[in-house]
Amino acid sequence: MPSLPTRAKLVDVGPRDGLQNEKSPVPASVKIGLVHRLQAAGLTEIEVTSYVSPKWVPQMADNHEVMAGIERRPGVRYSVLTPNLKGYEAAVLDRPDEIVVFGSASEAFSQKNINCSIAESIERFAPVVEAARAAGIHVRGAMSCTVGCPYEGEVAPERVGYLAGLMKGIGVQHIGVADTIGVGTPHKVQRAIEATLAHYAVDDVSGHFHDTYGQALANTLAALEMGIWQFDTSVAGLGGCPYAKGATGNVATEDVVYMLHGMGIETGIDLDALVDAGAYISDFLGRKPNSRAATALLNKRAG
Amino acid sequence: MPSLPTRAKLVDVGPRDGLQNEKSPVPASVKIGLVHRLQAAGLTEIEVTSYVSPKWVPQMADNHEVMAGIERRPGVRYSVLTPNLKGYEAAVLDRPDEIVVFGSASEAFSQKNINCSIAESIERFAPVVEAARAAGIHVRGAMSCTVGCPYEGEVAPERVGYLAGLMKGIGVQHIGVADTIGVGTPHKVQRAIEATLAHYAVDDVSGHFHDTYGQALANTLAALEMGIWQFDTSVAGLGGCPYAKGATGNVATEDVVYMLHGMGIETGIDLDALVDAGAYISDFLGRKPNSRAATALLNKRAG
Repeated sequence: MPSLPTRAKLVDVGPRDGLQNEKSPVPASVKIGLVHRLQAAGLTEIEVTSYVSPKWVPQMADNHEVMAGIERRPGVRYSVLTPNLKGYEAAVLDRPDEIVVFGSASEAFSQKNINCSIAESIERFAPVVEAARAAGIHVRGAMSCTVGCPYEGEVAPERVGYLAGLMKGIGVQHIGVADTIGVGTPHKVQRAIEATLAHYAVDDVSGHFHDTYGQALANTLAALEMGIWQFDTSVAGLGGCPYAKGATGNVATEDVVYMLHGMGIETGIDLDALVDAGAYISDFLGRKPNSRAATALLNKRAG
Repeated sequence: MPSLPTRAKLVDVGPRDGLQNEKSPVPASVKIGLVHRLQAAGLTEIEVTSYVSPKWVPQMADNHEVMAGIERRPGVRYSVLTPNLKGYEAAVLDRPDEIVVFGSASEAFSQKNINCSIAESIERFAPVVEAARAAGIHVRGAMSCTVGCPYEGEVAPERVGYLAGLMKGIGVQHIGVADTIGVGTPHKVQRAIEATLAHYAVDDVSGHFHDTYGQALANTLAALEMGIWQFDTSVAGLGGCPYAKGATGNVATEDVVYMLHGMGIETGIDLDALVDAGAYISDFLGRKPNSRAATALLNKRAG
């Protein structure tokens, strides 16, 4: 096996990406409790909320309240999603450490999801990126549908390279390669990452894999073998897949940590405390954590 | 990524390993129906039943009936588990193509599970192997606890090599490296396989991974990278983990097929027909398939 990174950084996207599609409102106090438990478990970056119209994403309407309620820890980066300048202007009041802008590698997905072409979405983000960088806020870009698209099917690596180049062109500092519908397998994911590495250094690229078809850990291993050491994950596997009802969405942070630690790759995360964080939000939602490692560890505790 | 095998063979162990711990009796007709669906889906080897005392494993008491009821297909290998000479003598009446003998890489597990040392278990298997080979029946060995043991914790690769050497010494032709409690991660699994390859050629070694902690596909990828191309899997993820209540056991055949096909590795298996086979037995058991790929594909069908 090629030599792998010796440490990894996980960005827990549970509070935002994970909870955004929950039908019942989750109170701000619970979201804040989750963020506190994640940082206590050793997470050093947490995607907290988004600044989109509450008409579209009612679950994130409490963004100001959540951001204001977090007791920030030094060394932890709090990131938020800002889809446009209006969102950015609302976000900046809450002093995020990082903003996230989203683009799709699939033209059809871009049209259906945000009603504009990929190129138009980049034009829309450009002033957001410019404003954030002028304010000293780190800018992360997220590329969705880098392997497959619910409308187009397979997405060619060239499309990923095209989007990565556009992101780089407007000043996005870090880029995430997301398999939004979880159809990726190791080689396909590696080709998407390879196309991205034509525009970004390996230290500025992260993987964001969904476990819809159970492939997320294999894809994580495939990415590690390319030197990628940063990954988005979601505690308790929060976040369904809106394109496959009842299916798993984001890979569970617990499963990824279990693999990394088993391979001797440091994360700074305490797996037991992480399982507690996942149990906290899962208890609130009235279901079991969608994580095999968490399930096995909770069963072990119960004897 | 290192060059990988271009084809893979999966042995579906669902009818035996998967069903053996089911509390409610599964009628022979349903087991036969499952075997028929698996071979129709393209599986070329199926672990059908075992010949152990019905006192210990009541679910397999119908071994003769099941074996007699299968309409055998040319090119498909029907294997059965034979723990001792008495079991072998019962099995041979049913003309299996292959018998399987089990040993543990963990001394503590061997003592607790089969009440004898590893060396004693090998002595017990020797006449079984001899008789089978004289009768022209292929002999497969299965090594349990090659990464971790519920009693001893981590199992050293040297212990795996020791057992593989003993198996080779009594004439076992093919050997499976099993992570019985699913605690393995890619490097650990590779070390267990490496120790086995000191005694067996790569074409005579298979991987048997459990998904208890969600690691099975990553471990499968790690094994593929060593040239391993044969794997035991269980349709619908049949088979719990007796050491972690409620946790997943055998990796689901559907998830492995999804990964292999996505990587361009041929299996000869029709994934849709395989999902049907898994839905058939899951419906009978009154639960959902324990497979993420099957879940996603069934949701997709339902629209």
